Amino acid sequence: MPAAGLVLALLGPALASGQSAENPAPKTLADEFARIHGEALAHPQAYSKLAELCLAAPHRLSGSAGAANAVTWAASEMEAIGLENVRLEPCTVPHWERGARATLTVVAPEDKKETFLPILALGGSAGTPREGVQGELLIVRSFEELDCEADAARGKIVLFDRPMDPRELDPFEAYGGAVNQRGRGAIEAAKRGAVAAIVRSMTLRLDDVPHTGAMRYEEGVPRIPAAAVSTAGAERLGTLARSGKKVTLSLRLDCVDRGEAPSHNVVGEIRGASRPEEIVLIGAHLDAWDVGQGAHDDGAGCVHVLEALRILKTLGLRPARTIRGVLFMNEENGLRGGIAYRDAHKDELQRHVLAIESDRGGFVPRGFATDAQGSALAALREIAALLEPAGASMMRPGEGGADISVLRRDGVVLMELVTDPQRYFDLHHSSRDTLDTVHPRELELGAAVLAAMAYGAAEAGDRLPPAGVR
Amino acid sequence: MPAAGLVLALLGPALASGQSAENPAPKTLADEFARIHGEALAHPQAYSKLAELCLAAPHRLSGSAGAANAVTWAASEMEAIGLENVRLEPCTVPHWERGARATLTVVAPEDKKETFLPILALGGSAGTPREGVQGELLIVRSFEELDCEADAARGKIVLFDRPMDPRELDPFEAYGGAVNQRGRGAIEAAKRGAVAAIVRSMTLRLDDVPHTGAMRYEEGVPRIPAAAVSTAGAERLGTLARSGKKVTLSLRLDCVDRGEAPSHNVVGEIRGASRPEEIVLIGAHLDAWDVGQGAHDDGAGCVHVLEALRILKTLGLRPARTIRGVLFMNEENGLRGGIAYRDAHKDELQRHVLAIESDRGGFVPRGFATDAQGSALAALREIAALLEPAGASMMRPGEGGADISVLRRDGVVLMELVTDPQRYFDLHHSSRDTLDTVHPRELELGAAVLAAMAYGAAEAGDRLPPAGVR
Repeated sequence: MPAAGLVLALLGPALASGQSAENPAPKTLADEFARIHGEALAHPQAYSKLAELCLAAPHRLSGSAGAANAVTWAASEMEAIGLENVRLEPCTVPHWERGARATLTVVAPEDKKETFLPILALGGSAGTPREGVQGELLIVRSFEELDCEADAARGKIVLFDRPMDPRELDPFEAYGGAVNQRGRGAIEAAKRGAVAAIVRSMTLRLDDVPHTGAMRYEEGVPRIPAAAVSTAGAERLGTLARSGKKVTLSLRLDCVDRGEAPSHNVVGEIRGASRPEEIVLIGAHLDAWDVGQGAHDDGAGCVHVLEALRILKTLGLRPARTIRGVLFMNEENGLRGGIAYRDAHKDELQRHVLAIESDRGGFVPRGFATDAQGSALAALREIAALLEPAGASMMRPGEGGADISVLRRDGVVLMELVTDPQRYFDLHHSSRDTLDTVHPRELELGAAVLAAMAYGAAEAGDRLPPAGVR
Repeated sequence: MPAAGLVLALLGPALASGQSAENPAPKTLADEFARIHGEALAHPQAYSKLAELCLAAPHRLSGSAGAANAVTWAASEMEAIGLENVRLEPCTVPHWERGARATLTVVAPEDKKETFLPILALGGSAGTPREGVQGELLIVRSFEELDCEADAARGKIVLFDRPMDPRELDPFEAYGGAVNQRGRGAIEAAKRGAVAAIVRSMTLRLDDVPHTGAMRYEEGVPRIPAAAVSTAGAERLGTLARSGKKVTLSLRLDCVDRGEAPSHNVVGEIRGASRPEEIVLIGAHLDAWDVGQGAHDDGAGCVHVLEALRILKTLGLRPARTIRGVLFMNEENGLRGGIAYRDAHKDELQRHVLAIESDRGGFVPRGFATDAQGSALAALREIAALLEPAGASMMRPGEGGADISVLRRDGVVLMELVTDPQRYFDLHHSSRDTLDTVHPRELELGAAVLAAMAYGAAEAGDRLPPAGVR
């Protein structure tokens, strides 16, 4: 469903700007990067764009009115920037709602009755009856531990309580070491007869803010309700369990599965000057969980993409290859946007030279992670080295963001903008992910280094071969 | 004035711990660094230490009761850690107080009368009479511009309004390009007959928080009062001046110069196992401006030093050389602590292998800056390379912190812990420099990499020669 009127309306000014603003004097890539950084920091627009998105659509989970607002906003931003071929590309997404209430209360022991634990339903969870489900508390730290206690789980509410490991220098590693509890906890608990699954929130902080996130069910396994409890809440339950008294909990979730809904990815381009059919994709995801404002996850990434394109347009930097901005729908609970993009662009994936995603928050940029190998990696490292003045010259192995990960099997080289990871899980998927936790200069620097990397790759010629050529 | 009783009280347990905790199995430096990072992140104490300091002595400008409290707190912390040779080393410091009131008001034009601009006296400024000083507003952006307008400054209040340049990727460079207005503004304005000097606050933010800092007077030049106005306040004055009407201001400052006062540096050590007479110094400054809590500047640095030593003690890591922690007094307005340290340790400066200061805030560490050259630089780079997993492997040219800068002429190699610079000037020298702006993990990572670098240097043998050997 390309928005044809939109495209026509844009072609005029976009072409005009492209023609008039071609850069007349030859410059080195380092010169261009200095101009990009200068424009980003002297005339910043990233933070005000993010404020707009956070106010227009703070809650924008797939299928919601907020998600639709975000699509409209993004297309209008791309128009305002003067991108070419601005369009909405259709995808079908799951439509799940958490509903009005989510409560986890202590039923026994008697002296702790009515204690409320701060929870959020996990995304995709089934709801409970109005009166909730009750069960004795069983705390485990791994699926293996649950195996040993196979029969012990029957009729119970299982708390998966393995914390993120604070000793990991990279909090994303700590997240990776704990998040299977959130993704598969309900399946593993249900297989052993549990009536509900609770997971300790995925954060290194000890506080009373629950963090939601996606979970899965499995064909043939009962779909039991699942929620995340705050880390401090998990600690309180642990203390209670160690007291020796039998602990019984009641869980109520009002979640509703509303089936599927139509939605869109939002796409716009700076067409390449000499190799327009070859594409450098820069992407982020428009959808966000329905708590907080999705300011870092992934409002920041969307603004990185939009502002990177704005900077290149403002400076009249039209590289050899096309730079295509894609704001994906449904990263958080389905990847339907990424899959729809892959399916719709099957014929040109071979000509995708690089796909870069920004989905690690609007913190100060440190560099990039990529699955590039050999001479392509060498070429990308050379570009990254020019980002040393911006403190973002890192180029480490990595697998790109979730949305673009579906392009891997087509051979597209994937890359991710890496921002400083230390604060991310303080707020990820929680009510804390709000605009005030984003620093304007840090956000703008992320946009600048994304613009520079995309421009460098789009100018790299045969040193960076299209996917089909590898 | 070494606190002899303190020293004696500490020698026992410190020696005992040193003997029992020597590391029995040979390990690589990378292994030791992993242990250091693990201890720092698994059993962090930095943030709670900083909270103590910020509560015990939020205002600790040299000569104040707060500064004395900070000295007592620091010595007691060093005792608690089990350092050796804990002592107070005397220095004489300036004792200046800002007094109760600081106001800058518009007197004319009539319709803007009584407008207050948010200001803070600069440190060391003279006070005004109770009725204030009045003068017509003159706005300049440089001393050169003031020269052209030589006579135009007579009897006026000069606003030095050159902003920090937002295009600088490193805000410290932007600071360096603007801060002469604060340091010398009063001198340059007074030479041309001005009655007061106002300086635009040294921050990249546009807001109503004034930032103080040190200023100087010059022999034979009238000592006119000087204050910093918020950036938004400076903008309002600029708008007023451009309106074409004559703008008259009134400045009142209650500052008092109380002469000099006795104070102390606080020193404690982990004595070296095989080369105890050779010293790796790690330092920070205990004093802070009398606004906010000095949480980043330089409470964070003090805690970096204390926690680095605590981690090494806890792990039983006693290196070949002595690691000496020095918490300096009077960095902000005199450097008397640094100078007193140099004078008191003249005879052993030749055996100082390296001096590292932390004075750039408690943000996530990026690496180090040093004036080391040749083989010493190569050795230090090798140590830094092992900090890559912590994201802090940078080793760039730099001149160390202010306190240790006085050791340069004795040939001591200087180094500075470099933390991410983007947020620092949001809060530097202002009411915003409070505990809540410090991130616990970022602070702890700084302590860990400082501990690792100090340990690596203290173990580097002849690859890192003492100052006298260069």
